[in-house]
Amino acid sequence: MTTHIRISEVGPRDGLQSISRVMSTDAKKAWIAAEAAAGVTEIEVGSFVPPSLLPQMADTAEIVAFAKTLPGLDVAVLVPNLKGAERAIKAGAHKMSIPFSMSESHSIRNVRKDHAAMVEQIAAIAAMVAALPEGQRPHFEVGLSTAFGCTIEGPIPDDQIVRLAEQAIAAGAAEVCLSDTTGYANPAQVRRLVRAVKAAVGADRLNTLHLHNTRGLGLANVVAGLEEGITTFDSSMGGLGGCPFAPGASGNIVTEDLVFMLEAMGLHTGIDIARLGDVRQIIADALPGEPLYGFVPDAGVPLGFERVAA
Amino acid sequence: MTTHIRISEVGPRDGLQSISRVMSTDAKKAWIAAEAAAGVTEIEVGSFVPPSLLPQMADTAEIVAFAKTLPGLDVAVLVPNLKGAERAIKAGAHKMSIPFSMSESHSIRNVRKDHAAMVEQIAAIAAMVAALPEGQRPHFEVGLSTAFGCTIEGPIPDDQIVRLAEQAIAAGAAEVCLSDTTGYANPAQVRRLVRAVKAAVGADRLNTLHLHNTRGLGLANVVAGLEEGITTFDSSMGGLGGCPFAPGASGNIVTEDLVFMLEAMGLHTGIDIARLGDVRQIIADALPGEPLYGFVPDAGVPLGFERVAA
Repeated sequence: MTTHIRISEVGPRDGLQSISRVMSTDAKKAWIAAEAAAGVTEIEVGSFVPPSLLPQMADTAEIVAFAKTLPGLDVAVLVPNLKGAERAIKAGAHKMSIPFSMSESHSIRNVRKDHAAMVEQIAAIAAMVAALPEGQRPHFEVGLSTAFGCTIEGPIPDDQIVRLAEQAIAAGAAEVCLSDTTGYANPAQVRRLVRAVKAAVGADRLNTLHLHNTRGLGLANVVAGLEEGITTFDSSMGGLGGCPFAPGASGNIVTEDLVFMLEAMGLHTGIDIARLGDVRQIIADALPGEPLYGFVPDAGVPLGFERVAA
Repeated sequence: MTTHIRISEVGPRDGLQSISRVMSTDAKKAWIAAEAAAGVTEIEVGSFVPPSLLPQMADTAEIVAFAKTLPGLDVAVLVPNLKGAERAIKAGAHKMSIPFSMSESHSIRNVRKDHAAMVEQIAAIAAMVAALPEGQRPHFEVGLSTAFGCTIEGPIPDDQIVRLAEQAIAAGAAEVCLSDTTGYANPAQVRRLVRAVKAAVGADRLNTLHLHNTRGLGLANVVAGLEEGITTFDSSMGGLGGCPFAPGASGNIVTEDLVFMLEAMGLHTGIDIARLGDVRQIIADALPGEPLYGFVPDAGVPLGFERVAA
C-alpha cells in the first residue's frame, strides 16, 4: 500500500451541478483558493457543458484561468463531448475527464449516445489532444460511470466494464477512473472490479475511484480501493453533490471525513484538516441553508489526533 | 474470510440507555420479537444496572424472560459488576458482557474501579459462572471498551490493551470484544489491534467488534475487521445510542446499513433486510421524534439487489 494518497476535490463541479442555486464566481474562487491552500492538489473546478443546461457552470473558463494561478494545483474539468474538450483545451485545463456510462441505457438517456458513439467521441478527443504541442496536452481521463450499477439497468456485468475500459484506452485515453455514480458499490465489488480493470488495461491506467456515499458505504469502499492500489479518490467538501441524471443517487463522499480517515490510518494526503473547516465555512456562507454533510466536522478529531499532515 | 457473519443487535441496551426517554416494556418486546423474526440471532436486550441509574433498563429481567421464548435467539445482557452478573444469571441470560475500560481514567470515572479492581470483578464473575451446573452457564464476554482511544486519555497503547485482554482471559472470561466506545477507530488501527489481541489470547477468543460511527468510519472499520477474521459485529437499529459516559461519543453503527453491506459483499447474515424496515417502524412509533439514522433506509437497496438473504 502506498503512503501518499491524493484527494481530488470535485465539489465545485459535481457538488454545484447537483443543486439548483448558482454559486457566485467570487465564492467559487474563494473556495478553490482556500482548499488549495489547505493542501489539496487537484480540484475539478467546473464543467464545459452548455450554460443553457447547467448555468452553475457558465463561468468555468474564468474559474480555470483563476485556478491555474494557484501554485501546485492541478486544475481539472469535466467535458461531456468533443465540443466541451475544445473549450477545456482553450481554457488551458491541466486535466479533463469525460463520463462514459457503462450502462448503455443511461448513456443514451444522459448524453444521447450509445457506447459506439461514445468511443468515437473519446477517440476524437484523444486525437485532438495528441495533435497539440507537447506541454500543452491536458491529461485525458475517461470516467467509467455507473460502473457499480445503474438505476435503469441494475447491475452491469464486469466483463462489459472491462471491455469498455479497454476500448477507452485503445481510443487514446491516458487513464480510466471507476465511478460509483449511483452509490451502489460495495467493498467486495470494488476490489473485484479494480483488480479486473487494472489487469486488462495496465495497473497504471486506473488510479482513481469516484465514490458516492448514498448508502453509507463510501469510506468502506475507499478501504477496499486502497488495498487494490488506488492512489486517488474523488470527494466533495461537505458531501455536496451527486449525479443529477441518476435519480436518488446523490452524495459524493465527504472530503473532510475522507482526509480524516486516511490521515488516521497513517497515510499522507498533505492536507491540513483544520484548514478544511475554513473551506467549509466559505461554502456555508456562499450557499446559506444548503445541507452540508460529514461526521468529522460535527464530532471533531479524536483527542491526541495530529491535525496537520506531514 | 468466512461467509457467515453474525449481527448482534445492541439497540435495546446501548441505544435505549443513551436516550432519556423510557421505551415501554411492550414496545421493547415487539422490537425484539420483530428483529428476531427478521433473522437476527443475537440481541443484547438490556442491562443489569441499578434502576436508579438507568430507569430505561428496569425491566431487563422481564425482557430476558420474554426474549428466551423466541426460537433461535441468543439473549445477551450487559452487566456492570458482580451484582449485575448475579441478576443476569438468575434471569437466565444466554450471554453476559462486562465493559472493561482500557483507559484507567475512564474506568475510574465510569464505574469507580481501577484496572486491578476490574480484573478482580471479572475473576469473581467467571468463578460464579464456573460454579454453575453445566448447561446453565452463560457465555461470559469482556468488552474492552475505549480500546481505540479515550476522550480523557486520548490514544491507549496497543500493548496495554493486549496485556489487559490477556488478564481478562486469564481471569476466566470466555471471550473478549474490542469496543470503539468513542468512535475513534480507523481501519488500520482495527487491523493492527485485532491481529495483536488475537495473537495474544488466541484467535477464537476475539470474534466480535463493537464499533461506533461517530466519525463516519464505522463500516470502513467493519471491512478491516472482516479481513482479520472478525465474525460478529454489534450494531443498533437506526443507529440509536452510544455511550453516555464518553462525551461526544454517540452512534452505534446502523444495523440496516451493516446488513446491506455484508449481504451486498456476498456474505450471509441470515437477515431479511426488507423486514428490518418493519422493526424500524416499531421503534419510530414507540419513540416519536427520536432521531433514527442510516443511509439504506432512505436510499433503498440498489436495483437488482437480492433482498432476502440465502
